[in-house]
Amino acid sequence: MQTLTVDLGDRSYPIYIGAGVLQQSLLAQHVRGKQVMLVSNETVAPLYRAAVCQSLSEFEVDEVILPDGEAYKDLAHWNQIFDQLLLKRHNRTTTLIALGGGVIGDMAGFAAACYQRGVNFIQVPTTLLSQVDSSVGGKTGVNHPAGKNMIGAFHQPVAVLADTGVLNTLPDVELSAGLAEVIKYGLIHDADFFTWLENNMQALRSRNADALAYAIYRSCEIKAEMVALDEREAGVRALLNLGHTFGHAIETHAGYGQWLHGQAVAAGTMMAADLSCRMGWINADDVDRIERLFKAAGLPIKPPADMTPAHFNALMSIDKKVLDGRLRLVLLEAIGQAVVTDQFDQAALMQTLQGVR
Amino acid sequence: MQTLTVDLGDRSYPIYIGAGVLQQSLLAQHVRGKQVMLVSNETVAPLYRAAVCQSLSEFEVDEVILPDGEAYKDLAHWNQIFDQLLLKRHNRTTTLIALGGGVIGDMAGFAAACYQRGVNFIQVPTTLLSQVDSSVGGKTGVNHPAGKNMIGAFHQPVAVLADTGVLNTLPDVELSAGLAEVIKYGLIHDADFFTWLENNMQALRSRNADALAYAIYRSCEIKAEMVALDEREAGVRALLNLGHTFGHAIETHAGYGQWLHGQAVAAGTMMAADLSCRMGWINADDVDRIERLFKAAGLPIKPPADMTPAHFNALMSIDKKVLDGRLRLVLLEAIGQAVVTDQFDQAALMQTLQGVR
Repeated sequence: MQTLTVDLGDRSYPIYIGAGVLQQSLLAQHVRGKQVMLVSNETVAPLYRAAVCQSLSEFEVDEVILPDGEAYKDLAHWNQIFDQLLLKRHNRTTTLIALGGGVIGDMAGFAAACYQRGVNFIQVPTTLLSQVDSSVGGKTGVNHPAGKNMIGAFHQPVAVLADTGVLNTLPDVELSAGLAEVIKYGLIHDADFFTWLENNMQALRSRNADALAYAIYRSCEIKAEMVALDEREAGVRALLNLGHTFGHAIETHAGYGQWLHGQAVAAGTMMAADLSCRMGWINADDVDRIERLFKAAGLPIKPPADMTPAHFNALMSIDKKVLDGRLRLVLLEAIGQAVVTDQFDQAALMQTLQGVR
Repeated sequence: MQTLTVDLGDRSYPIYIGAGVLQQSLLAQHVRGKQVMLVSNETVAPLYRAAVCQSLSEFEVDEVILPDGEAYKDLAHWNQIFDQLLLKRHNRTTTLIALGGGVIGDMAGFAAACYQRGVNFIQVPTTLLSQVDSSVGGKTGVNHPAGKNMIGAFHQPVAVLADTGVLNTLPDVELSAGLAEVIKYGLIHDADFFTWLENNMQALRSRNADALAYAIYRSCEIKAEMVALDEREAGVRALLNLGHTFGHAIETHAGYGQWLHGQAVAAGTMMAADLSCRMGWINADDVDRIERLFKAAGLPIKPPADMTPAHFNALMSIDKKVLDGRLRLVLLEAIGQAVVTDQFDQAALMQTLQGVR
């Protein structure tokens, strides 16, 4: 087992990474009061609820099981967590445990942020995507029909348990979606890690435990470093959104849950790479390397065929990265180096929107 | 005009108190981007919307007008604020302005806390209660059918404008409700202020501007001092809840909006005073002084006649001040000195619940 500390002063917390961390006493160590509310979904709960409950035998454990999927990440399902907390009379010393992927982590974390104005929260991410992304950094929230993650809060967990063992039950398509974010970390911050991924993609897709553990550790390390520098996302943290402005537009256009987040990020990142190339910041060989790696990871490299520039323009203008009406994008200056900028050519952007090559 | 600074490090903010502060340029000074969302209710908006908009002519001002009353302080009406923010494409540099009483302040503040994970927020409280209580301290939130203020966040405004002029349109019963909280500040922290209130209650009820300004200033000063010491309500800030554990039970039992918050706090504070007397901490003369002052302020001194000890026990066990199943109450050691404690006699509590004297 490896332990990574996210350094946020008095809100610092450990991420435990490795095979079997869920079977250890780590969970119980981070519960504060007597009450625990397990938040999970109908897919994950039957698989791992028993392991979680076994390690919490000394506590009063209640649970709320939500339907599985991004389509249910809304205020109405979020409110079901409060219904259960109040029905079972949980007080402000309760601990919420999120057992599931990013949707469960975001909803349970946001409920923990708001129940009685903030209670204890532990993340047990069960997808590669949530292990390397949404479980690190304290972003929580739900979707609004007019935009993804528009309602939320920053709320740090007291611990994250990333067990590589749970990835054995993850469908291939979701493993690939997680790899999109892993590749993103290489692209924005670490060219050597990008090369390592080129050399180890087959090992990762065949779920080699050591390869997965390294990829998770390095991804979390890069994200933790950026979050520690910039907890409230004023500056460098925005680089983590590479591919996300285009990607959110793709997800919204397709309808939540139709494209997996990681798939949309992959196609969105290819659009960012294409625009970066048109600006002359990276060259065609770089774009080819990125495209080959996404393909090797089993990911799409283009947005849905029916999306027009008009669709993108309409959906991106509501994006959180628009400052006072001016669109800012994360683009690449090199593999391993990203930048947030509004200094790009509008004609080049239009060419990118008209179809990635 | 007087200005009080709530000292919270990089979240410090000014409270402007006096007649006509709304007519000055103070509001515009604290807007950050180009967009403003005015949140108000159907009663207050027609009275003061024009004054607010006139001082914001250089900004894009949109508005959401909610129905008036505690009954509408719920997730569904809270979501109407997000509907409007997204419809009008407000980005994360927007400023929300709460124009109304505590309900509007709590809902708009909670929306500001959660819209895109936190945006700028200005309070323009239009009731005495919200000027001396909910506009100071950063508590925001909505009610759940099973409990008041169970869903919320701490989110500090960037400025509060407490204009004594707007109190001229406030119904008498709401002025009295605000005075309940003013009296509370004297009881928990300042015996001299309590005496000043005994001597000036008629001036306050007849809306003498100078008397109101002093009462608001001193109340905000006491609350600001306690909030600065204890932003997250771990310790001394809990003293501000004098009368609130009993009071919340009264409000919930009566049904939200049936008893005004300040009326419930007055009756609840009398119960706390009664229990404190039964414990021998204050004497019968103290209880008489408190009762006389609440009566002079036009406030109830007993809970609804149909409330039984069983009602109180059921409703208080869900209260946020229950720690691991043990009820904690704010009680009085003297007029001007309160304490948070779970060290009270259960039999004495039962006698109090059976009827305040």
